[in-house]
Amino acid sequence: MQNIKLLMTPGPTMLPPRVLEAMGRQIIHHRTKEFEVVFDGLQEDLKYVFQTKNIILIFASSGTGAMESAVVNLFSPGDKVLAVSIGSFGDRFAEIASAFSLEVQKLSVQWGEAVDPIQVKNILDGDSENRIKAVLMTHNETSTGVTNDVEAIARLTRNSGRLLVVDAISSLGGIDLQRDNWGVDVVLTGSQKALMAPPGLSFACLSDKAWEACNRSKLPKFYWDYKKYRKGILKEVSENPPYTPAISLMSGQAEALKIIREEGLASIFERQARLALATQLGAKALGLELFPKQDISSHIITAIKAPEGIDIEKVRKIMNLKYDIMVTGGQKHLKGKILRIGHCGYCSMNDLIKTFSALECALAGAGWSVDPGSAVSAVQKVIFAKDLEDVK
Amino acid sequence: MQNIKLLMTPGPTMLPPRVLEAMGRQIIHHRTKEFEVVFDGLQEDLKYVFQTKNIILIFASSGTGAMESAVVNLFSPGDKVLAVSIGSFGDRFAEIASAFSLEVQKLSVQWGEAVDPIQVKNILDGDSENRIKAVLMTHNETSTGVTNDVEAIARLTRNSGRLLVVDAISSLGGIDLQRDNWGVDVVLTGSQKALMAPPGLSFACLSDKAWEACNRSKLPKFYWDYKKYRKGILKEVSENPPYTPAISLMSGQAEALKIIREEGLASIFERQARLALATQLGAKALGLELFPKQDISSHIITAIKAPEGIDIEKVRKIMNLKYDIMVTGGQKHLKGKILRIGHCGYCSMNDLIKTFSALECALAGAGWSVDPGSAVSAVQKVIFAKDLEDVK
Repeated sequence: MQNIKLLMTPGPTMLPPRVLEAMGRQIIHHRTKEFEVVFDGLQEDLKYVFQTKNIILIFASSGTGAMESAVVNLFSPGDKVLAVSIGSFGDRFAEIASAFSLEVQKLSVQWGEAVDPIQVKNILDGDSENRIKAVLMTHNETSTGVTNDVEAIARLTRNSGRLLVVDAISSLGGIDLQRDNWGVDVVLTGSQKALMAPPGLSFACLSDKAWEACNRSKLPKFYWDYKKYRKGILKEVSENPPYTPAISLMSGQAEALKIIREEGLASIFERQARLALATQLGAKALGLELFPKQDISSHIITAIKAPEGIDIEKVRKIMNLKYDIMVTGGQKHLKGKILRIGHCGYCSMNDLIKTFSALECALAGAGWSVDPGSAVSAVQKVIFAKDLEDVK
Repeated sequence: MQNIKLLMTPGPTMLPPRVLEAMGRQIIHHRTKEFEVVFDGLQEDLKYVFQTKNIILIFASSGTGAMESAVVNLFSPGDKVLAVSIGSFGDRFAEIASAFSLEVQKLSVQWGEAVDPIQVKNILDGDSENRIKAVLMTHNETSTGVTNDVEAIARLTRNSGRLLVVDAISSLGGIDLQRDNWGVDVVLTGSQKALMAPPGLSFACLSDKAWEACNRSKLPKFYWDYKKYRKGILKEVSENPPYTPAISLMSGQAEALKIIREEGLASIFERQARLALATQLGAKALGLELFPKQDISSHIITAIKAPEGIDIEKVRKIMNLKYDIMVTGGQKHLKGKILRIGHCGYCSMNDLIKTFSALECALAGAGWSVDPGSAVSAVQKVIFAKDLEDVK
């Protein structure tokens, strides 16, 4: 019997049945009224998720494409940026900026930590000639399970000439990020994480300040050219978007966003906090330690230290082959050192119960001393709790 | 009643039920054996369609992304290329090359004509200092319904230091294009035309000579970096592809390619020739003229001149609203001047019968003198014909 694998990974995440149904619909043409309805609905629902009044640019690409799009649209060769990295996706943003000949000052934080806004403040304050044009950062670093305080960094940039460009690929729609209220200049995300659609779409939302930067940018661009996409969205030209869009994915994404609006962002953020706390307490009940400190531990993915003497890759393999549950290991120097449980997007407490049951069995199978049901009951306590403060 | 529109357009084309079923499957993770099986199967089936032994690079993007990818991977700023344009997609390739600071010599052919290989030969022969590094061209120009003779142009480049880069986005899998035998250096295509999948995937296949050019290229790149994709395909690195792929689209594409292999390229090319001839003869039976000459008229899309005094956009509207069949009009200066009927990918003679029945009714409704059934019977004659030569 080939079972469907339950993906408890940082993405792609499981797809709701309504999204699958939308993906399986016959294609419609993109230069039609029917498509315009889908597109306009997507705009409205994406604005809700981005917490913005501004337009949302939609690309047929993975999230990395959106990161590249920000670099080539906002900057010119030689422009200096501060790239804050707390893990492998922060590193990637710095690499992209370097690939396009920006001068990159990199602030690397130890993996497992969040960036301290004071460090960023000191660097910006020390840049007396205002050479640093922008701060590039990751909202939620899936490689380490840490969430950065974007609001605090935005306070440093929003009343300055500097831009704040945030990779919110794994977080947007799962962790609060207020594009307009916080004054984040560019927010980038992808379809396949908290937005509950398949991978292949990416999104960008810009502040007015960021749009001004686009006017100064001299890096070459064509496929990613923000202004061309904007003209279509604002109906200044009839061709919207400029190139054939990923129609089926957009139909799937439109359906997923309807589900998100039905639940509401506040309820989703509360559910994510509850899933995270349950995962943290489940891990602790098994005698495992969190990789990051609890207060910076992500609400959509929990990184747990591999217990001493246990082959955590073997544990993952047992969970996958015997229990059809896929969790993730560590990347780069964290390989074999951590276990990462994603609980993002279309994910319920039932999924977490199954996951911890499997983790208990797999850990026991790998030689770790497990009191059967201990983690499951810790998760249940969080399910029962009226107020999360009572169980923290 | 909201009917499904029959898309007789140059793309996206209709999706076979098996492809829709694949698109509606629950997501699988891309760093798994299951995905590797899908990916490796895609490689093999794409090689069949590209008629090549070489690897196929797969991007999450629309076809324009693949065109950009070729420019940024093969060239350096200031490199001179000859951009052959016979319509709006040829113009686009020239624009992309210009956007990335190539020196573009443009050979513009009148819309409705194919390029004369002698013209290309004369330009290349006249380039005694070998400044022209490559010829960029469109195989099948959907804006005009004309197919270029790629084989003839390849004869001019394949034993030279120059590259031939071909946009085969609308043609590959529908019109013969032999990557290896003809020595075409770069073949680019997309998922949503003859390949019968939804839009959102694009593909590139390179000759050894083109891979050598990648080593010399100095244009900045990250998302499109061919070498990174190659490493994954050749299993030199474990991360394949380098960025999260459009998994659902790849599953849909894999299914579509299975259908293509079941029918076989030779049979598909014969079917396309038959669909094209039926469309040409159907149009003639209505007293309409082809836009291009018959011998260069595309096998996947037929462009027909709007009859004198008839509002062809009104005809299109009637076909769409009353008969649920979408055909395309002209682009740019051809708007209102031509009607384009796509018959590409998942398209049968039955679809053409419906289309011509609707066209007869819509033309009559718009004031054109129509002998009812005349075009339909012309199409039927081609269906009956054992040998297409008998009805030409």
